[in-house]
Amino acid sequence: MKNQQLVLAERPDGIPGPQHFSSVTTDIELTPPEGHIAVKNLYLSIDPAMRGWVSLEQNYLPPVAIGEVMRSITVARVVDSNHPDFAEGDFVYGMFGWQEYCVADASFMVRKLDPELAPVSTALGALGPSGLTAYFALYEKGQIKSGDTVVISTAAGGVGSIAGQIAKLTGCTTIGLTGSDDKVNLCTEEFGYDHAINYKTCGDIEVAIKALAPNGVNVFFDSTSGAIADAVYPCMALHGRAIQVGTAAIDSWIPTPTGPRRDRYILTNRLNVSGFVILDHMGKYPEALTQLASWYTEGKLNYKESVIDGLENAPLALAQLYEGVNLGKQLIRLAD
Amino acid sequence: MKNQQLVLAERPDGIPGPQHFSSVTTDIELTPPEGHIAVKNLYLSIDPAMRGWVSLEQNYLPPVAIGEVMRSITVARVVDSNHPDFAEGDFVYGMFGWQEYCVADASFMVRKLDPELAPVSTALGALGPSGLTAYFALYEKGQIKSGDTVVISTAAGGVGSIAGQIAKLTGCTTIGLTGSDDKVNLCTEEFGYDHAINYKTCGDIEVAIKALAPNGVNVFFDSTSGAIADAVYPCMALHGRAIQVGTAAIDSWIPTPTGPRRDRYILTNRLNVSGFVILDHMGKYPEALTQLASWYTEGKLNYKESVIDGLENAPLALAQLYEGVNLGKQLIRLAD
Repeated sequence: MKNQQLVLAERPDGIPGPQHFSSVTTDIELTPPEGHIAVKNLYLSIDPAMRGWVSLEQNYLPPVAIGEVMRSITVARVVDSNHPDFAEGDFVYGMFGWQEYCVADASFMVRKLDPELAPVSTALGALGPSGLTAYFALYEKGQIKSGDTVVISTAAGGVGSIAGQIAKLTGCTTIGLTGSDDKVNLCTEEFGYDHAINYKTCGDIEVAIKALAPNGVNVFFDSTSGAIADAVYPCMALHGRAIQVGTAAIDSWIPTPTGPRRDRYILTNRLNVSGFVILDHMGKYPEALTQLASWYTEGKLNYKESVIDGLENAPLALAQLYEGVNLGKQLIRLAD
Repeated sequence: MKNQQLVLAERPDGIPGPQHFSSVTTDIELTPPEGHIAVKNLYLSIDPAMRGWVSLEQNYLPPVAIGEVMRSITVARVVDSNHPDFAEGDFVYGMFGWQEYCVADASFMVRKLDPELAPVSTALGALGPSGLTAYFALYEKGQIKSGDTVVISTAAGGVGSIAGQIAKLTGCTTIGLTGSDDKVNLCTEEFGYDHAINYKTCGDIEVAIKALAPNGVNVFFDSTSGAIADAVYPCMALHGRAIQVGTAAIDSWIPTPTGPRRDRYILTNRLNVSGFVILDHMGKYPEALTQLASWYTEGKLNYKESVIDGLENAPLALAQLYEGVNLGKQLIRLAD
């Protein structure tokens, strides 16, 4: 069988895009060895974390090698199985990469999906990493509770929009930070934020947040770092919690960029700042997915997907992700 | 009764010193109203936190006003009491200020001391704020456990030297950061550190720490902020904990100084960074003091005091504190 793949051709210095990947066609035997499955990819997930995956900077996974298929979580269909838990025709979630087909160890990150519960593509977002990230970051690290004021950066994005809704469903006051007036409207009209700020046009972001959070910010769900985060720290309430979920506003960490020191806010307000990586929480996925699916099927979770057809469009979609033009979770569809 | 006092005369722009305080003599009636006690100060504590107390910058207590007696914790003797828990002759710990006598509300921060347990001056250090800070910061925030590698800045100071010993008593590997060869010797010979680094002469601090902590730093007890802390963050282990206990290396927070952003280390290593103020932990003092007194009386806690006689020397002692020349807890003795 022919297998079209996108491999990392050149290591980007900053934002990855079409110039850093090449398309290659290889032969693949769809005959899985013991414990493995052969799958056909249906949807690829385009994620902010990918910039880190192709960088040599310190990260939570080893960098994708030059010539290696681009790492990506995907939703796929099993075409042959040599593992007792999976059968031909099953829908699965896994790390199957930017390619049409994959033969993979079924014990590594592979999860069977129930197509009756929700469209299987949601496993790449609301009922997958985005939802799980929002859920565990807010509850485990942020310790959110009713009455808290929660600020969310990249508020209209795949993770942020779910975080905003989970916080709201928990009884928090939610303030979204986002980069366009369209997204401000999405935040308040679609994602139920109490307030949303266009950080590009609002003037002094710190002043804007303080006006909306006169008693301080209890929880800061931060996917950006950089100037946006700098504006939120002075607004934090006593014993506030900041969760570093991503650093999308920083193009490169080599050399380490500088910014205002936060230690005095951390000390005097006894803040708690913690880094969050979803892989640490795998043991508790079932509990969280049950809650997320319940909200989703009850219509309480407004989840947007932005779907582009064709494997060849994945690199451009990735580059555009960092321009902030996508509305909702960015997916590439290879087949239905 | 005449009462000599040191009042804040001028707000310092940076390090407080003799030029910022004036000596005044006032009359005081040592007749406490109901619920109050009248005390004679024996020992004043000279603390790094005092720079923050006389600054208008955001802090955990309101700033000392111009003309107000300098805020200070002290050990004193009750000369008259109108509170059922205290009697003339009792030794007490309290916030009685830089002055000879004080009439104070006995319900605010006042604690009776047992002179049989240990010299009462230890209530200003090992069996007081320094010991309590080290204890709660390491156990509650740092979650130290046997086998952890713990880095302590201001390692030979009043708080740091106790923190190093508590970590060692808990089975941790301890690395002290300090600013002179004399203090390096103190750290390893008196305070039981496994390693100590003179950060002024060691060259690249990060390289020096990594050589001593090849598996990373699990807990960073930081009283300094600034360049020293910048060197430790890249050395942190997965799921490491950093506790911001002070920010002694930063002269002024107005305007906010800049430094390398730490968000990427926090994210990828899932660090937990927390601010620590001892006042948050008052409810658990008895438990901690019992443990600290037990270690102290068993000779397991090497605690140094640097005692200077005379109220008038308090401002100079405070200024010198930030020069790092003191060896151990700095006290001013007014009487025995």
